[in-house]
Amino acid sequence: MRIETVCTGDELLTGLTIDTNSRYFQTRLLDTLGLTVTRNMVVGDVPEEIIEVLSQAAARSDAVLVSGGLGPTSDDYTAECAAKFGGVPLVESIAARTHLEDRFRSRGYALTANNLRQALVPEGAEVILNAVGSAPMFAMTVGRCLLMFVPGVPKEYLHLVEHEVLPRVKQRAGHTGYARLKLLKTVGLPESHLDAKIRPLYPLHPKVTFGYRTHAPENHLKLLAVAEDPALAEAALAAAEAASREVLGDFVFAEGDESLAGAVGALLRARKQTLAVAESCTGGRICAAMTSEAGASDWLIGGAVAYRESAKETWLGVKHATLVAHTAVSGEVAAEMASGARAALKADWAVSVTGYAGPTGGDAKNPVGTIFIAVQGPEAPPAVERHHCAFANDRDRVQQFAAWTAMESLRRALRGAAR
Amino acid sequence: MRIETVCTGDELLTGLTIDTNSRYFQTRLLDTLGLTVTRNMVVGDVPEEIIEVLSQAAARSDAVLVSGGLGPTSDDYTAECAAKFGGVPLVESIAARTHLEDRFRSRGYALTANNLRQALVPEGAEVILNAVGSAPMFAMTVGRCLLMFVPGVPKEYLHLVEHEVLPRVKQRAGHTGYARLKLLKTVGLPESHLDAKIRPLYPLHPKVTFGYRTHAPENHLKLLAVAEDPALAEAALAAAEAASREVLGDFVFAEGDESLAGAVGALLRARKQTLAVAESCTGGRICAAMTSEAGASDWLIGGAVAYRESAKETWLGVKHATLVAHTAVSGEVAAEMASGARAALKADWAVSVTGYAGPTGGDAKNPVGTIFIAVQGPEAPPAVERHHCAFANDRDRVQQFAAWTAMESLRRALRGAAR
Repeated sequence: MRIETVCTGDELLTGLTIDTNSRYFQTRLLDTLGLTVTRNMVVGDVPEEIIEVLSQAAARSDAVLVSGGLGPTSDDYTAECAAKFGGVPLVESIAARTHLEDRFRSRGYALTANNLRQALVPEGAEVILNAVGSAPMFAMTVGRCLLMFVPGVPKEYLHLVEHEVLPRVKQRAGHTGYARLKLLKTVGLPESHLDAKIRPLYPLHPKVTFGYRTHAPENHLKLLAVAEDPALAEAALAAAEAASREVLGDFVFAEGDESLAGAVGALLRARKQTLAVAESCTGGRICAAMTSEAGASDWLIGGAVAYRESAKETWLGVKHATLVAHTAVSGEVAAEMASGARAALKADWAVSVTGYAGPTGGDAKNPVGTIFIAVQGPEAPPAVERHHCAFANDRDRVQQFAAWTAMESLRRALRGAAR
Repeated sequence: MRIETVCTGDELLTGLTIDTNSRYFQTRLLDTLGLTVTRNMVVGDVPEEIIEVLSQAAARSDAVLVSGGLGPTSDDYTAECAAKFGGVPLVESIAARTHLEDRFRSRGYALTANNLRQALVPEGAEVILNAVGSAPMFAMTVGRCLLMFVPGVPKEYLHLVEHEVLPRVKQRAGHTGYARLKLLKTVGLPESHLDAKIRPLYPLHPKVTFGYRTHAPENHLKLLAVAEDPALAEAALAAAEAASREVLGDFVFAEGDESLAGAVGALLRARKQTLAVAESCTGGRICAAMTSEAGASDWLIGGAVAYRESAKETWLGVKHATLVAHTAVSGEVAAEMASGARAALKADWAVSVTGYAGPTGGDAKNPVGTIFIAVQGPEAPPAVERHHCAFANDRDRVQQFAAWTAMESLRRALRGAAR
């Protein structure tokens, strides 16, 4: 079954609005019916463009969802274009007019001539009243294609997609197979290496589509299994997941909606242990990621953003002599930051980062992009690592890389530590 | 001049990713050249679909920007499709290969066979090396249409649009009038209030288009003046800016690329004064925003993310009795956090936030979404404010609101303080 979407509205082509509606439809279509949209076309409020994309989409597809342009204003052309494309006149729907009149009366608003335009639909179209807005949805069949027209207002779009569009697509699709999806998240592995590790699995898992998504500094692997019955789809997905996890090993830090900070938090929560953070060049990004997790106070005591040397001495007890002897960007200072934070907050674990985020700073030995990370748990002195960010000319990227690498080092230490 | 865009990638049709690239291109196209995109087509990683939309777009348009599918993985088909559509073979670009080899060598990564696919381009295409990524951009002319192919990775897309795509569109468009743009950034003013204040200016400034952009919790006003000569455009823009600033007053915290943290930093730098930060519910977001600014160490000494009460006592000297008497979410604790951070780090200024980010916590008096902010400068005890975030059911939004409101309170205090 081929499904396309058409989004209309000047605001979608001038940078004013980001289309979040389509994502909702796509996600629900995949999750509930295992179907995907083949093409999405975005056009402005231009009748000739709208008519052209309607006829193209209808000629190619079994179902088309058209959104936007059903409002009461003079740049709302969609119903008119649908009628022209279908070769029928626009007629007033009595049901839609009554709905409009009732809606305006109940709100105490005057019904203007403009508003009545919203009761006009192509002759012969099925009219579906909109419980959360004034413009009705309508549907018409042209050739083998079912075209469904909904308003672009997100609240109305979501409501109608859920209650009217998806059931009609399902009915039209008949049995579509069952889709099961899994997202595996990795960090520390470039996308090309991820692909090289996973590609040999393709022929072994014919029911599974492997996809990649970069969400720097993370790379995600998406597994989509489609099969004739749910158990088969689940089995195919489970086999592909197991094979993927085997080749990716500990690079997989989480799946689905779980974040790297969430994975760290889950390990700490399971151990009933706590964390202190000491940040320099990451400037609060580790703490910010961790406190995005609801309930982080179960395992996070706090963190210091010790940006200047004096803050490192005051809050983290870094020795002045260490700063003088090794500079603030050194393994020695990272180690003292971690053990200082851990001691100050009486935490079980601590993680620290210091480095050169740029654009200036650094020296020949430790250029911009160099970071030192220290992780300390209950059982040993701080373990120090040195990394270099490959994107040293981008301050934001170095900071993000440093924060994520530190969280990943902590996650691996937590997994490796005795319970 | 007709311009279309083609976005490729399964992730754009399965709800995994929201396309923010197109918005960037659309905005910059309008702002710098006064041009708009006529149609955007989104297709998955399906060669037949890609080839079909390329040929349709090229037949209709003067310029087409194609993004995505230039990565090293097996579902990256765009270069191959461009070659097929153009009727030419794929050939290795020596410049692109050298760029790839240099790039991988400098990062110490092994170059895989996959990576070398990124050096393949349609024969005869102009190859434009990508300073911020491995895949080159390429451009080819088919009939009257210039097709430009760029990677979909946002950072690479943005860089190439700015430095390579827009200049080529401009050259092709010829003279389009002179556009002058100004972005005024506000915080603390809902979009509808911003609109109500600005709308009366529309008829007084006919050469200027007023646009709004929500970048929660900020709302931006975009002024775009277009005229037949540069001086006229500049004069129209200056008049509209002056009128807008008059009605918006101190709600405008910055313009153009300057951020709220940058505006705070500039005020501190001008005074040669320093800042200490004390965060609870914002969890590091204030420090993260501030350390996004290069050279923040000139004015930021550091900050404490005092998430649990013990961290507030240890690092910020909040009195145990105050926590017991007033709870951690109170004006009294906010005041002690600010004065404690200021004293510990010997800073001129301090800002603190404590609040209920949710989803749980809070009580009848101070429900989820309530935050207390304290700002202290060299001349007076901490000034405390209480705010409530209107989106209390969204943890992330409360945290962002709290961080931005605190920075704005600090900015206003800095502007109001004696020099």
